[in-house]
Parts: sequence; structure tokens; C-alpha cells
Amino acid sequence: MTAVAGTPAAFRAACDDARRRGLRVGLVPTMGALHEGHLSLVDAARARASFVAVTIFVNPLQFAPTDDLDRYPRTFDADLASCAARGVDVVFAPAPDAMYPPGFQTHVAVGDLTEPLEGAFRPGHFDGVTTVVAKLFNLAGPCVACFGRKDYQQQLVLRRMAYDLDLPVEVVSLPIVREPDGLARSSRNRYLSAEERTRACAIVQGLRAAWDAFDGGERDVRALTALCRAPVDAAFDAIDYVATRDPETLAPVDRAQERAALLVAAHLGPTRLIDNVVLGEEPRP
Amino acid sequence: MTAVAGTPAAFRAACDDARRRGLRVGLVPTMGALHEGHLSLVDAARARASFVAVTIFVNPLQFAPTDDLDRYPRTFDADLASCAARGVDVVFAPAPDAMYPPGFQTHVAVGDLTEPLEGAFRPGHFDGVTTVVAKLFNLAGPCVACFGRKDYQQQLVLRRMAYDLDLPVEVVSLPIVREPDGLARSSRNRYLSAEERTRACAIVQGLRAAWDAFDGGERDVRALTALCRAPVDAAFDAIDYVATRDPETLAPVDRAQERAALLVAAHLGPTRLIDNVVLGEEPRP
Repeated sequence: MTAVAGTPAAFRAACDDARRRGLRVGLVPTMGALHEGHLSLVDAARARASFVAVTIFVNPLQFAPTDDLDRYPRTFDADLASCAARGVDVVFAPAPDAMYPPGFQTHVAVGDLTEPLEGAFRPGHFDGVTTVVAKLFNLAGPCVACFGRKDYQQQLVLRRMAYDLDLPVEVVSLPIVREPDGLARSSRNRYLSAEERTRACAIVQGLRAAWDAFDGGERDVRALTALCRAPVDAAFDAIDYVATRDPETLAPVDRAQERAALLVAAHLGPTRLIDNVVLGEEPRP
Repeated sequence: MTAVAGTPAAFRAACDDARRRGLRVGLVPTMGALHEGHLSLVDAARARASFVAVTIFVNPLQFAPTDDLDRYPRTFDADLASCAARGVDVVFAPAPDAMYPPGFQTHVAVGDLTEPLEGAFRPGHFDGVTTVVAKLFNLAGPCVACFGRKDYQQQLVLRRMAYDLDLPVEVVSLPIVREPDGLARSSRNRYLSAEERTRACAIVQGLRAAWDAFDGGERDVRALTALCRAPVDAAFDAIDYVATRDPETLAPVDRAQERAALLVAAHLGPTRLIDNVVLGEEPRP
């Protein structure tokens, strides 16, 4: 039986009560429109904790005025059914004004890690993410929190935040879940027309080409990046970035070492997709 | 017996252990150089909690390069003895690099409330305060935290932070403790020469003049502020501000209502003193 907590106080009480019963809390923060990627995080939380909480909140603070806040998919009934089928203990689904009541004026911000890549193309985005996740962590209390590696920079930022602020939270990141043809699962995939859906695979084709080249010994970052960029250039309408970076700091590198993160953000019509792979690390995308 | 925790991990463990034993944690964050003002906070914490933790940390993040970080008094042995005499359970005294290890890059910031007054004269100060106090709250866990009203704006800012971020902390603020002649107790009073110490009383004389006028029915903010400002002008070397504000938002007001905060910051040689009173509220300063 999956309980629904509609207010911050009810969610805190549910997590506190679980801890009092000796349970460990596993937290999966989401914006809803749940797909197998999210549900793999639920399974990962269940494997690490005895009380699993999913939060569903389309956080206005992390959307720019030009972003897709209004059209972001809201599928609460289906989300709740998916959570129930996966044995989630509590779903927290607050109203925006319960999270940001009148007079709200506090922000949590991470520095260098938030500047490149998503931070450069979505100013203010990460401040919105860190602020809401800090609130969710504080409501949930000591827990293990599971995030997907599709948002590669985000999981680095949230891990940094938890460490820097001494939050009693273990941040765990889990592998990307892909469609049979390789497209990374994303709530935004449902924006794609059938024709765009076919073109979208160019990203994973690029990632695979770079992964295979790295596997074959290529270490030159310009070469690896170019291999990934070529199919994306051909299929997408615009590219925000294709970049090979240090996998921990996201700093630029000239030569890939044992591992390197290759990250892509690109547009198909009004839809922006992101994806990534860690070169030198299983699984192949 | 007062335990000393030298690392964040040891401090967290001490507070977690207290809670496991069914105790409620009372937290008193300080920068050391403890005086009766701080010790009144210890007593207030003891009245509200069964396990009292004092933190002693001269937080570099809240000092500007031109501030008195280097000469700020450090009196750890005396502080520890004072805590022991007052029955403190644990003193947390971390090294700066334990609080801010290499790579540290996360900040907590409160908005509008931090802009005027101290925020205007000490840029970045409150970001340093909110960041370190968020860390201390996260290490201590659910608790009641006691702050002094001499730092009037600070206690408003910290209460706002705790509320906005859903921190499981009850923020309590306690009355200013004064010397027999009315000077507010402050670690910085020990910077004053004998002659400056005499002149320093001009602030409380100004606060009393305004408090008495308010008590007699005066509600015009310009008149109340001028009454306070006159003796400070005469005795101090420079004034940062003398201001009468809304006691909750610190917004400017033309006429005082049932309550108003009158706040002062001024310099005697190299020493900067602050003080305040809430007009319409006991006690008379």
C-alpha cells in the first residue's frame, strides 16, 4: 500500500515514523512522468533501504522562463500506480506553494561544478535543483538518495552539495536506462514526433562511436568528441554542447585518462535532449 | 563532564548518540571568546533540551578580507572551562579545513532579509553565516538552536533559513545580556581601551532615549531615530547605521507600529560595535 503525503509536514512525519520503526529511508526525487529510468531508481533504493519514498514535484525554481515548465508532462495517477506496483512506501507530491510559501528567499548554490555544460546553457537551473533537493533531504532526514546518471552533472552537483553541507544523506547514482534502440529514457521523449524519435538515436550512435574508439585505444579528446559529434550534427537541429571532460570535476581535458565523461545536449525542434557516457567504463551505451 | 569533538564526524556521532538515548539536543553556535551572553544561551538551551552542544568556530567565511578574522579573540581553554562549569555536554571545535576541505564550493544564501544594515556594510557576511550554520545544523541533527538578539538581523536570517529549507531545527532567540552600565556583552568589547569603553555606552544611552520616547507615545521614526543617533554621533568615530525598521522584515517604516526594531552599528577606532532594541517590547535596554 503506497501512502500519499501531500504536505511537507506529512512527508517528514512518514519518514520520521519509518526511522522510529527501525527502517532505513531510501529517497528517489523525481519530477513525475515516471518511466523505467525512474523505476530502476526505486529498485535501487529498495535494494539499499527498507522504506522507499518517491517525491514527485515539478520544481518551478529549476525552470527558466523560456523552459518547458508549463508543458512538462504531469501524469500523477499513472505515476502513483507505477509506484504502488514497485512497492513504494510513500509518494510525496506537494503543491508548489507548499514548497515555496510567500516570503521564501533561501537558496543553496554549488560553485565551479555548476558553471559549464548544463549550467552554461541553463542559467539558474542548478540553483533550483540544489535548493529543492536540499529541502527534500531535510524533510526526509537521514537517508540514501538515488539519482540517475542521465543527469550526469546533476548527480555530481548533488553529491558535492551533500558532502559540503554535511547532509546526513548518502547520494548514489545509477546507470542510464535505455530504450531497445539505445535512446536514453527521458520524460521529455514523449514530446518527440515519430520522425524526431528516429533522429534522436543519433546521440547514442555518437556516444557508441566514441566509446568504441576509446575501447580501441583512442585517447585524443578532440578525436573522441568529433566522433560523437558527427551523427548528432547530421540529425539534430541544434547542438548546445558535445564535450569530453574530467569525469569528477567536469574540467576540460586534452587527453582522456583512464576514464572521461562525454556529454551531449542537443535540440530536435522544441525538444532538448541530453545524454552521456563515461568512456572507459561499462556498460557500452 | 564536557566532551570535546574535534571533527565533524565526532560531533555528529555525539549528537546522534544523545538522540538514541532519548535526549533532545540543544545547540549553541558560537565563535568562542565566551561571555555571559553566550552562557545565557547555554542556560536557555539547557532549559529546552537535555543534551547541550556548544560549537566554537571562528568561521572565516563570514569575515571580509578587511575584517578582524586574525585578531578575533581565541580563548579556547577558558571557553571550555566555562562550558564545563555550565554543564555543557559536548563542545565542537573543528579546524577550518575540517569545515571547508579542499574543493568546498557550496553556499546557502538568504535573500531580501540579508540586504540592508549588516548586509549592506558587510557584503558576503550573511552568506558565510548561513553556510556555516546550515552545516552545524546538519551535523547536530534535529535540535533546538539558541541565538542572541544582539545579532538581531542574524537571528531573523537564520530563522528564515531554517524555515525555508525545512531544517528540523527550532531557532530560538534570547535577550541581549548587558554589562551593569548597559553596554551589550560582546567578544569585541575586549578590543576597547578604557577611554573607548566609556564612550561605548553612548549606544545604549541612545537606545534608552528612543525606548523611553516610544514608551511615552512617540511613533515618528525620524524622531525616534534622531534621539538614538545624537549620543552615538557625539561619542563614536563613525556610524554605519542607526535605523528604525519593521521588526520582522527589516523594511523601512515611516511610523512605528506596536513594535519596531532600532538598530545601530558604529565604530570606535578599529572596533565596530552593534546593538539594538525592540521599541514597544520589554526589557528596556
